[in-house]
Amino acid sequence: MKLRALEERELILAIRKDFSRFDKDLILGIGDDAAAVRAGKRYLLLTKDLLIEDFHFITALHPPYFLGRKSLSVNLSDIAAMGGRAKYALLGIGLPSRTSLRWLEDYFSGFKSLGREWGVLLVGGDVSQSKEIVISVTIIGQAKNIIQRKGARPGHLLFVSGELGNARQGLLLLKRGFKLGDDPRADPLLKAFLDPLPQLALAQELSRLKLASSMIDVSDGLSVDLGHLCEESGCGALVEQEKLPLSRELRFWQKRPYEFALHGGEDYQLLFSLPPEKMDSISGLKKKYKVSCIGKMIRGKEIYLVDRRGRRKILEIKGFQHFKTK
Amino acid sequence: MKLRALEERELILAIRKDFSRFDKDLILGIGDDAAAVRAGKRYLLLTKDLLIEDFHFITALHPPYFLGRKSLSVNLSDIAAMGGRAKYALLGIGLPSRTSLRWLEDYFSGFKSLGREWGVLLVGGDVSQSKEIVISVTIIGQAKNIIQRKGARPGHLLFVSGELGNARQGLLLLKRGFKLGDDPRADPLLKAFLDPLPQLALAQELSRLKLASSMIDVSDGLSVDLGHLCEESGCGALVEQEKLPLSRELRFWQKRPYEFALHGGEDYQLLFSLPPEKMDSISGLKKKYKVSCIGKMIRGKEIYLVDRRGRRKILEIKGFQHFKTK
Repeated sequence: MKLRALEERELILAIRKDFSRFDKDLILGIGDDAAAVRAGKRYLLLTKDLLIEDFHFITALHPPYFLGRKSLSVNLSDIAAMGGRAKYALLGIGLPSRTSLRWLEDYFSGFKSLGREWGVLLVGGDVSQSKEIVISVTIIGQAKNIIQRKGARPGHLLFVSGELGNARQGLLLLKRGFKLGDDPRADPLLKAFLDPLPQLALAQELSRLKLASSMIDVSDGLSVDLGHLCEESGCGALVEQEKLPLSRELRFWQKRPYEFALHGGEDYQLLFSLPPEKMDSISGLKKKYKVSCIGKMIRGKEIYLVDRRGRRKILEIKGFQHFKTK
Repeated sequence: MKLRALEERELILAIRKDFSRFDKDLILGIGDDAAAVRAGKRYLLLTKDLLIEDFHFITALHPPYFLGRKSLSVNLSDIAAMGGRAKYALLGIGLPSRTSLRWLEDYFSGFKSLGREWGVLLVGGDVSQSKEIVISVTIIGQAKNIIQRKGARPGHLLFVSGELGNARQGLLLLKRGFKLGDDPRADPLLKAFLDPLPQLALAQELSRLKLASSMIDVSDGLSVDLGHLCEESGCGALVEQEKLPLSRELRFWQKRPYEFALHGGEDYQLLFSLPPEKMDSISGLKKKYKVSCIGKMIRGKEIYLVDRRGRRKILEIKGFQHFKTK
């Protein structure tokens, strides 16, 4: 059996089962956005992502400054999804000999700029030669109140931050040759793909105020990540299509904006559930952050999509396939 | 300027300078074997290494079980070099679609076996597609007494654990077609390359007894790593060639065993300095561990090699070049 036939998800489940020993300080192992370890009164959060050339980014399309930022922000998004804050970063980077010093300077300049924005210090890592560019970032963060994937209950409301589908449309436009600055109607979409902003501030408020009963970041697409949330929480969900937050720009370029919002991937927004009695508190947050109620958690295992006419159908789970080789 | 002309060391120095901000809890940032962060009465140790196919290992020569062990042990060696113990691991792994499930099972079986030996739990990570096999392991460890690269003083004695040069000769034999079990005189050398054992137990004793004034692991070759130790400590060193610990097997296969011991790389032994008043305590350790006094720290910046006739010459620093593409 070759790996081609093996889904990443299945592999992670197999590893998770295999390594499911715990020690007294380990609160969360494999299977959430980050691992959590008790450290005094707080929790230490540990997360790691790989970015591999031609699978996660295309060097010719991705300015190195933004790639530097993105390689940090996709990890910060995992820390955000736990309601934490990021403290330290380790960076492993494999570079082909064709890499220019200029590219590298821009990459680090971007990495540094986002690190500075969120108070994250680069404390170590590794540099190696490689055939393609390989980036592995590890973040060590901390949290007082962890928000896990599990915790949603039937009746809890389902919220998402920001807008959905922009990044996927941005990638399409990049592939069609659009560059930042070419068209003001394209720029927000290009930006969403090239330089996603981690939702740390909102996440930290949700953690501090103990509002969210569960949370995940939308990295693989709403349908996939909502699937994880439901599975871990042991319930289903109902998503109202009309309530999905779509940007004007996505509607402008895309005839099937809802498809992109549901399955687009790389949005790095937060998806969280909220007990209904906390609706008042969330309205306070709405003054500072864009958050939209897109449905609710329900009994059972199914995830339904309700269309504008109120018709309910099973939401197909299909996520972003990166740049999968054919 | 292309990266080919840029040494890894220079790159790390540039990054280190660029990111040399500290926060109150950060004790050691970029530039030692691991980063160290204060966590209550202890220190948290953070380290990460990349292993990239054809640069750090050749898949056809490296049984996946041993690669699984080695991808963990090279990181454990960094934790050992700080005098710490390892607690948690994150694993990022990029896999080509050609990877067989069998390969993967053997890899994880090896990873797990070494993890179990040293009480390290795999708590998270990332799985991705890639063109070559890419492995990035992060270890979170802890220590009460950190042993840094700096701290050696002129007059301190220089020690190394185990034997040097075996791994490099093992790689040569592998490339010549030798396999484990073919020849008992080759096996220890093959093993040294395929499955190096992290010197955690010795390191923890050196830390507990506060014996070593400085320490580093020998990963790039004695001359390179001694160079780091001297640079960080602000002194020079004198190495007595005749005292270098060589295995019978290395002497059997290799006409230039001292070359291999000095510059071989991938030994993952510990190199440490010892204040002379602690010589008595080290003799206790010698009953349990193989450690050899190979010279001493001296004033100045130079590193000298003393040959069997007592002639002193500058030790050229040249390390292991992995499988560098020509």
